[in-house]
Amino acid sequence: MRKIAILGIGQTKVDEHWDKSLRELGGEAAFLAMQDAGVDRVDALYVGNMLSSMVSGQNQLGAFFSDWVGLWKEESVKIEAACGSGAAAFRSALMAVASGDVESALVVGVEKMTDKAGRDVTAALATAADADYEVEQGVSFVGINALVMRRYMREFGWKHEDFAPFSINAHANAMHNPYARLHEKVTVDKFEKSSMVATPINLLDASPVGDGAAAVVIVPAEKVIRQPKVIVAASAAATDSIAVHSRKDPLFLNAAFLSAKQAYAMAAVTPEDIDVFELHDAFSIMAALSLEAAGFAERGQGVRLGLENQIGIRGRIPVCTRGGLKARGHPVGATGMYQIVEAAQQLRGECGTTQVDGASIGMAQNIGGSGATILTHILRRE
Amino acid sequence: MRKIAILGIGQTKVDEHWDKSLRELGGEAAFLAMQDAGVDRVDALYVGNMLSSMVSGQNQLGAFFSDWVGLWKEESVKIEAACGSGAAAFRSALMAVASGDVESALVVGVEKMTDKAGRDVTAALATAADADYEVEQGVSFVGINALVMRRYMREFGWKHEDFAPFSINAHANAMHNPYARLHEKVTVDKFEKSSMVATPINLLDASPVGDGAAAVVIVPAEKVIRQPKVIVAASAAATDSIAVHSRKDPLFLNAAFLSAKQAYAMAAVTPEDIDVFELHDAFSIMAALSLEAAGFAERGQGVRLGLENQIGIRGRIPVCTRGGLKARGHPVGATGMYQIVEAAQQLRGECGTTQVDGASIGMAQNIGGSGATILTHILRRE
Repeated sequence: MRKIAILGIGQTKVDEHWDKSLRELGGEAAFLAMQDAGVDRVDALYVGNMLSSMVSGQNQLGAFFSDWVGLWKEESVKIEAACGSGAAAFRSALMAVASGDVESALVVGVEKMTDKAGRDVTAALATAADADYEVEQGVSFVGINALVMRRYMREFGWKHEDFAPFSINAHANAMHNPYARLHEKVTVDKFEKSSMVATPINLLDASPVGDGAAAVVIVPAEKVIRQPKVIVAASAAATDSIAVHSRKDPLFLNAAFLSAKQAYAMAAVTPEDIDVFELHDAFSIMAALSLEAAGFAERGQGVRLGLENQIGIRGRIPVCTRGGLKARGHPVGATGMYQIVEAAQQLRGECGTTQVDGASIGMAQNIGGSGATILTHILRRE
Repeated sequence: MRKIAILGIGQTKVDEHWDKSLRELGGEAAFLAMQDAGVDRVDALYVGNMLSSMVSGQNQLGAFFSDWVGLWKEESVKIEAACGSGAAAFRSALMAVASGDVESALVVGVEKMTDKAGRDVTAALATAADADYEVEQGVSFVGINALVMRRYMREFGWKHEDFAPFSINAHANAMHNPYARLHEKVTVDKFEKSSMVATPINLLDASPVGDGAAAVVIVPAEKVIRQPKVIVAASAAATDSIAVHSRKDPLFLNAAFLSAKQAYAMAAVTPEDIDVFELHDAFSIMAALSLEAAGFAERGQGVRLGLENQIGIRGRIPVCTRGGLKARGHPVGATGMYQIVEAAQQLRGECGTTQVDGASIGMAQNIGGSGATILTHILRRE
């Protein structure tokens, strides 16, 4: 595949942006990415979004944003894969540039969630699950994850507090990220005393929703002069059944395993080579399962990496270095693009206090639904 | 770009499929395409859909269908560009195969619209327009098209009945298409006496919604033995402002002009070479504007092609040879894929009474919103 580089990045703070419309929010990240890239036009626009039709009454976000950012003629399209929409849009853009039909692309992940009441957003998020066989039973998205977490704890003998390090690490890193939604220190005590959402998932296990947008500009690598170059070393996507109950093993993220395996092969690396891993910690259980599926821990042992202090900035495999979904926030369709932007920031050495020393290979893994659509990208500094 | 062929095609009748769920409907077209292609698996699945989150409470259609059709691990994603979703999904699949990262792809356009009341569907369709500046004014999608048609009639001096040939031609062709929603002959008298929807658009100017799905399997051309080969000679996409009022000329489909121009250049053909043109006649005014933008008529003269009997099967430029949106029906996110399937049927010589003699180059043009996202594809028999 053609070698592609990330030329520019941009992001907004994840927040309740009641003062910004959907177009202003996505436009802000887009303009920042184009400014950072030093370009005022691109050949094509790819938008990752999940909820805009239900929350903002707006579909066709390709044309919607292409209009707003001044790409008045260029190809544009929206890609949706639930919470995996951001990385799916990134991959669509990669395919287009790799095909040779498009020479430069802007990718925007954007989600506006706080304009509706919480119950409406919960219902909208449920569209990521199987409407006929899961939602029909009255189970919400957090409910499905709670069932998975409960079974994991029972099968492998972990206690709830064993998951605390994921939350503590994410919140500690977010303290140094101005774009993060939450700037609040978490302790084991605070974690254990947090309000219950769906047993055993409490508020500090769960990522907050929010409004946010993150964007990048990509071009063929040979066109980039800027140093260091951030290269897309691998892009891979895999699927699992949309309903968790259809899986042989509900405690194994097979699509994460498959897409990570393909990505490692494509980039010619192993898990040992990964310096930073921006994983999809929508719930603390998902952080554990992601670490296992991507080859950093044995089955059922993902939580151990947290307990042994291996996930921090100076640990064996730093995760959520800018706060992750847990503390940077989870504007669902934008999240995958935040991960790409953050991994690029690490490789560019722009992360200050939470900079991973000498980070040269970063991985981002974005999950749609309860592990149904999973995309793994590996970036490399050159 | 890598040369790609359509290996298999499949479609369901456009209808009120109250007995079929969303997954059964899309699955049927997918299975038919795979059967026709003689394959039982592909590398990736691309789904074009606009309304499923609002009508069926289901998002993440990539994983949803990949699960159902037995692609339990393969990459899958949904693409949305309002009524242009079908062709946009087709183009995403083309880019992936052209990149070399994917060797075979299944593309499914699917829409289920009749499970909700008409007013809910009208509201859902309005998400294709600009929520802030068009829908906010209370204008529906047909309302916007009515304003455009009224201005066209005034500016170029056409009467309402001058548009009748578009409706008559589409309905006449649909009589011979078992997959068409409407099998009903239309005359000028019937056309003029039809119930008004939004002046001057009446029921016989407007395409009916419906439930439907159409699918294809694509592979690199060198892998195809079957004769005749249906090659994708060109794929192009362009954008215009999402709101009609932002355009310099609301009576010119600039994105249709641009994408057609790019497609002609890519396929190294001119409008004279096109044997069949599956255009996007969501409303009769759109048929006229499409013919003009794609180079078959001067500005304001698209209706003349109908009046001079040039759009029929034996005319200069046969359009809507299987019924078009008007009579085959317009299951919005599926429509672009019906057009691709129908153009392929013409090149394969499978259209019986409505077969265009010796058709070797077919063009399909799919429109999202009021001309905001437009994709043009040219297929060639080899």
